[in-house]
Amino acid sequence: MKGFLDLADLGREGVLDLLRLAERLRRSPEPTALAGRVLGLLFFNPSLRTLSSMQVAMTRLGGTSFVITPGTGSWQLESRDGVVMNGAAAEHVREAIPVLASYCDALGVRAFADGRDLARDLAEPAISQIESLCHVPLINLESAVNHPCQALADWRTLDDLGVPRNGKLVLSWVNHPRALPLAVPAAVAHMAALRGMEVVVLRPDGFALPPAIMEKARQAAALAGGRVAETADRDAAISGAHVVYAKEWGLTAPYGDAEADGRARAGLTNWTLRESWFRRAQPDCRLMHCLPVRRNLAVADEVLDGPRSVVIQQAHNRLTVQVAVLHRLLAGTDPQD
Amino acid sequence: MKGFLDLADLGREGVLDLLRLAERLRRSPEPTALAGRVLGLLFFNPSLRTLSSMQVAMTRLGGTSFVITPGTGSWQLESRDGVVMNGAAAEHVREAIPVLASYCDALGVRAFADGRDLARDLAEPAISQIESLCHVPLINLESAVNHPCQALADWRTLDDLGVPRNGKLVLSWVNHPRALPLAVPAAVAHMAALRGMEVVVLRPDGFALPPAIMEKARQAAALAGGRVAETADRDAAISGAHVVYAKEWGLTAPYGDAEADGRARAGLTNWTLRESWFRRAQPDCRLMHCLPVRRNLAVADEVLDGPRSVVIQQAHNRLTVQVAVLHRLLAGTDPQD
Amino acid sequence: MKGFLDLADLGREGVLDLLRLAERLRRSPEPTALAGRVLGLLFFNPSLRTLSSMQVAMTRLGGTSFVITPGTGSWQLESRDGVVMNGAAAEHVREAIPVLASYCDALGVRAFADGRDLARDLAEPAISQIESLCHVPLINLESAVNHPCQALADWRTLDDLGVPRNGKLVLSWVNHPRALPLAVPAAVAHMAALRGMEVVVLRPDGFALPPAIMEKARQAAALAGGRVAETADRDAAISGAHVVYAKEWGLTAPYGDAEADGRARAGLTNWTLRESWFRRAQPDCRLMHCLPVRRNLAVADEVLDGPRSVVIQQAHNRLTVQVAVLHRLLAGTDPQD
Repeated sequence: MKGFLDLADLGREGVLDLLRLAERLRRSPEPTALAGRVLGLLFFNPSLRTLSSMQVAMTRLGGTSFVITPGTGSWQLESRDGVVMNGAAAEHVREAIPVLASYCDALGVRAFADGRDLARDLAEPAISQIESLCHVPLINLESAVNHPCQALADWRTLDDLGVPRNGKLVLSWVNHPRALPLAVPAAVAHMAALRGMEVVVLRPDGFALPPAIMEKARQAAALAGGRVAETADRDAAISGAHVVYAKEWGLTAPYGDAEADGRARAGLTNWTLRESWFRRAQPDCRLMHCLPVRRNLAVADEVLDGPRSVVIQQAHNRLTVQVAVLHRLLAGTDPQD
Repeated sequence: MKGFLDLADLGREGVLDLLRLAERLRRSPEPTALAGRVLGLLFFNPSLRTLSSMQVAMTRLGGTSFVITPGTGSWQLESRDGVVMNGAAAEHVREAIPVLASYCDALGVRAFADGRDLARDLAEPAISQIESLCHVPLINLESAVNHPCQALADWRTLDDLGVPRNGKLVLSWVNHPRALPLAVPAAVAHMAALRGMEVVVLRPDGFALPPAIMEKARQAAALAGGRVAETADRDAAISGAHVVYAKEWGLTAPYGDAEADGRARAGLTNWTLRESWFRRAQPDCRLMHCLPVRRNLAVADEVLDGPRSVVIQQAHNRLTVQVAVLHRLLAGTDPQD
Repeated sequence: MKGFLDLADLGREGVLDLLRLAERLRRSPEPTALAGRVLGLLFFNPSLRTLSSMQVAMTRLGGTSFVITPGTGSWQLESRDGVVMNGAAAEHVREAIPVLASYCDALGVRAFADGRDLARDLAEPAISQIESLCHVPLINLESAVNHPCQALADWRTLDDLGVPRNGKLVLSWVNHPRALPLAVPAAVAHMAALRGMEVVVLRPDGFALPPAIMEKARQAAALAGGRVAETADRDAAISGAHVVYAKEWGLTAPYGDAEADGRARAGLTNWTLRESWFRRAQPDCRLMHCLPVRRNLAVADEVLDGPRSVVIQQAHNRLTVQVAVLHRLLAGTDPQD
C-alpha cells in the first residue's frame, strides 16, 4: 500500500484485509512496530477525532508525530500554480509538502473542499496536488469529496454491530446552519455499497449527491452485490433500514451558492433526525454519524442519547482502523534518511 | 485513586501519601512506568505551566500525550444541555468527551469559571459534566473554583522550604486589570488549612471569598488543627506570617458584575504587593504566586526579583507532583483497548 | 557546547566538527542517545520547518519535546523590564523562561526582530534576555539578526553539492510585499565568509546590510581566507557565481520606516529572481533560499522548479544538522531533576 487516499484504491478484498489487520493489532498490539517512525500531520481545517486519534495511533505502534496547522503557528500556504504570491500566504505547497515529507515517514493531510465549483471539488485538486509533491506515503484525513479513514472505521463499526452485509443503510441529509462538504456522504455511500449493502440516499430536493459520486457508489455496488438508490421520500427510505447514517451537506443544485443554499434550508427545519423517523425501520436500527454533530439541529438529543446511537463507537474505531493503516503503510519498510 | 479533581477527595493522609510518592519518583524515576499510556489534554483556556508540565510529566514516566484546544485547530464545543446548536460551536461535550476518553488512558481538562453566576460556578458545572461523560480517570487542570495540581505543588513547596505545618499563610488579594476566577484562592486556602496552617485571607471590602469556599477551608482546618480567618487589615494579617500567597480575583459582592468590579478596583491601586508589606512578617517570609503574575500591578519587581520569591520553585513543583498524580492514576492498571 | 546561539561562537573548526557529527549520526543513528530528555520549544513567531524539524530531531535521538506559542493557547508574554503589566500580556519572560527551562533539558526559542530600531535589533535584546534567564542550554531558532540552525544547514548543503570552499556565493536581495528581518542575510553572509567563500551581497540602494553585520562577516572571512563585498550591480555580482542565495529583507536606510520601505520597493519590481539572472553565472550555479519563499515575487517558478534549486535539500538539512546540535548539547549529560 503506497498511500491511503481512497477506499476504492484497495478494492473490497483490500478493505477486508485491512480490517482483519486492525482486529489482529487490537488483539495483539505491536507497541514497537513503528519505533523511530514519524507521521507528519498537516491540517488545513479543524479537527478533534482525526487530530487526536492519528497521534494516538502512532503512539500505539511506538512511533511519533508532529502537527502543522497553516495560519496557526505556521505560515498560510498557497496552492495555486503560477500565482504571484503577494497576498497573505507566505509559502507555497510546492515547497511545504516536499519539506514536510522530508521530515517524516508518512504524511497525513486534511484539506476540505472549496465548495464553490463542483467539477473542481470532484477533481480533488488539493490532495492530488499534494500527492504529486509528496514522496512518502500520503494519508487522506478528509479531502474535498473523500474521507477514507472515516469510511474504514464505519465499515468496522457495521461489522462490530453485526449489521448484515446486505443490510439496508439510509444515508440521510440532516439540517445544519450552512453548506458542508460532500466528503463524508460520498465516502459513506461508496463504503456501504462496497460492503454489499442496500444504500438509499435520502435528501430533500436540490441536495441530490452529484452524479459522479452516485456513479462511483453504484460501481462499487455492482462489484459487491449491493444497490444504490436515492429519494426524497423519508418513510419509504427508512422502511426496513438497519442503519440510518445522518449527515449534513450543502445544496448541490446549484452548488456553491450560499444564498440559494440558505433559502433552501430555511424550508427544511423538519430535517432534524428524531426518534419518530425510525417507526418503519428495523427495531434495532442504528444511528450513525461521523461527528461533530449539532444536537437538536442535525440530530435530536432523544436519538443521540438513546440506544440507537453508535456515534462514539464509530469515533473509537477511527483509532482502531488507523493503527492498521499506519502499520500497513510503514511496518517493515526502511525509515527515512 | 479514580481521578484527581479536588484535594479534599484525598483527605490529609491521601495528600501526604501522594507527596511521598512524588519524592520517591524524584529520587528513583520510573521512566517506563506508563509506557504505552496516553494522556489526553483538553484546554478550554490558555496555559503555559500546565500545558508543558503535564506533557513532560507523561514523558518522565514513558507515556505520551496529545493536546486539544477547542476553537484553535479543533471545533468549538457546546456544553449546555438541550440546546439547539445553531451557533458557533460545532460539537457538544456530550460527544467530545467520550470520544477523547476513548483515545486515552486519562484525560486532563482545564475549564475556567464563567464568572457570572456565583452559585453556578461554585457547583462546578463544567468539570462535573465532563466527569459524568468520561470513563477514564479525569484530572482537573483548573476548574471554576479548584486547581488541585497547583495546590498539591504548593504544599510540596511549603514542605521544601521548611515552612512549619502550623505556620501562618496569608492569602492576599492583589491588583489586576480585571476580575479573575476564584479557583486558585479557593484551592490554596483549602490546601493550607488542610496542611494545618493558620490561614488569613487578606482582601479589600467586596472581595471576601464566598462563604462556601471559606467553609470548606474551615472544615479542612478543623480536621488538621489549623485556623482560617479573613480581614481587610493588611498589617494585622501579615504580622508574623511565614508566607504571603499573592493572588488576583474578582469582586464577589456583587459577583459577576464587570462594571462594579472595575469601579471597585479603581480605588485599590495600593494593592500591588511591595517589599514594605513584609515589615511585620517573619524575616524570611516567602512570596508565593501560582503564575502568571502581572509585574508591578499584582506584585512589584522588588519582591518577585528578591529572595522572598519562590514562584519558580512552585512552578517546577507542578511537574514533580503531577508525575505522582499520573503514576497513582495509571501505573499498574490495564491500558485502554 | 553550552548553547547554540551563533555560529560565530563555535569558530570554523567548531562548525566543521559539528558537521562531521551530523554526518556520523546520519550514517549511524543513535535512536536512544537522548532517551528521557525533553526539548522545550517556544515560538514567538510562525514556523513550518523549524517547528517540525526540531520535534523530529528529538525523536531521532529518542527524546521528546513540547511546544509553547505565546498568544495561541498560551499567555502573551511581556519582555520589557520594569513595566507595569496592565496590557495584553499576562506573563513576563522573567517568569516564563525559568519555568519552561525547569521542565526541559534544553530550550529552543524563536523571537524575530522588532524591526523598528536598528541598534536595538543588532543588540539581540530578546534572545540575550532569554539567555540570561535560562539555566539549560538555549538554542536560537531565529533571533533578531541570527539564524544559526539555518546557517549550519546551508553550510552542509554547500558541502553536499560540492561547492568549492572558496567558491562565489551571491546573497541577493529579492522582492517581498514588506520589510522582513535581517536574521537570515546576516547569518548566511557570516556562514559563507567563515566557510572561506567569496561573498557578494547584491542589493538595491537603501538595502545595504548594516555595517555591524558586514563587519562580522568580514572578520569571519579574514580568518577563513574568504572575501566579502557588496554591490547593486547584478551582472557583475552574479558573474562566475557558484550559488545565488536569494533573500528578502527590509530597507535599512532608513531602517524601520514602513512607509519609506514601501516606496522603495515599489520601484524594485524587477528584483524577482529569474533564470535570466544566471547568464553570467557558473553553468551549474545553484539557487538557495531558506524558505518560505513567495513564488513569482521573490523567485520565479522557472528557477524554483528548475534544476538550479536546492531549497528542499536545504530544508532537509535543517533536520540533519539539528540532530547534531541536540546531540552535542545533551548527549552524555545528566538529565534535569
